Amino acid sequence: MSTVTTPHPGLTAPPAAPPRRDAEATKAAILRAARYLLARHAHADITLKAVADRAGVSAPLILKYFGNKDALFARVMSFESDADALLDAPLEDLGRHMVRHLLEGQTQRGADPILRIVFAPLQGEQGDILRANFRTQVSDRLAERLTGPDAGLRAELVVGTLLGLGVMYGIARGTRLRATTIDDIVERYAPTVQSQLTP
Amino acid sequence: MSTVTTPHPGLTAPPAAPPRRDAEATKAAILRAARYLLARHAHADITLKAVADRAGVSAPLILKYFGNKDALFARVMSFESDADALLDAPLEDLGRHMVRHLLEGQTQRGADPILRIVFAPLQGEQGDILRANFRTQVSDRLAERLTGPDAGLRAELVVGTLLGLGVMYGIARGTRLRATTIDDIVERYAPTVQSQLTP
Repeated sequence: MSTVTTPHPGLTAPPAAPPRRDAEATKAAILRAARYLLARHAHADITLKAVADRAGVSAPLILKYFGNKDALFARVMSFESDADALLDAPLEDLGRHMVRHLLEGQTQRGADPILRIVFAPLQGEQGDILRANFRTQVSDRLAERLTGPDAGLRAELVVGTLLGLGVMYGIARGTRLRATTIDDIVERYAPTVQSQLTP
Repeated sequence: MSTVTTPHPGLTAPPAAPPRRDAEATKAAILRAARYLLARHAHADITLKAVADRAGVSAPLILKYFGNKDALFARVMSFESDADALLDAPLEDLGRHMVRHLLEGQTQRGADPILRIVFAPLQGEQGDILRANFRTQVSDRLAERLTGPDAGLRAELVVGTLLGLGVMYGIARGTRLRATTIDDIVERYAPTVQSQLTP
């Protein structure tokens, strides 16, 4: 980590972030904007300018960071880094970890990592790319972690239970669920998930 | 039921359906077309003509059956009749029934009754109508059937597990899941659902 120097220590302005952090934050804002638009419009209808406007940056800056629109959307359609974080726990605690990670993504990071798959029908052929990525990067990768019979099927059922919780929380916006603490939801729902992971 | 008379008994042409059946089949085709479009476009962007074209009927026929576009979409945004069928089982067998009903809807009837909620983000203000309908017509109605503590929250978790299975089967199109018989999926998944219904 580089040291952050505050330009005006006597003021309450936020400390200046180092340049690397700025670039990462800008890239993240661009990806968020592209994801937002991709959840509401077909890929073909989204202009680079629309992404730029929503992210509060210029279109040339998007080109600088991502190369071109196709490369940007290829990045948006990947679940690779989401799966890294989602699966980052030992198998015996994975149910709890995945439920918590999903809910914290929605409540604290304002992101729906794996939930993007629900917008596949919007995307025509691009939807098939999204489905194929989801399969290899999320379901199959989880299946590789499982032991016992029908690991592939059980992995899909596990991912299904997570997607359902995400839909109910973030899309249907269930009022009881949203009035419940994450800890409480984890207590109630993780055993459901874990029962397919380690039956 | 009215009697079906076959106009040309010596031919293998399908028997003529009675008029009532025709009207119901046409209405169902119109609703399917409207649902299909609503899963891909914002309500405001869908014309009556687009619905008519997709259903293979004329726009005036839609008006005859549904009155106007708003009335048609109000019908499409209701989960009332879907919930009737989804919840039509005694509580002790409801988990099995709901899982089977959801999967048979996708494989045999080509319909995703409750899954329409996942397209709420597409619909702006109409999405809030969809959410409110979903809450009162599906989650709250299920909650009324449950006994014991936290019935409302448990009902939302149950509906979540069903939605997740529907997303994994019908939208993400999980290959293992789709290669598995409905009976087998019911065996594996119903206990998960039932454990929140009757913990």
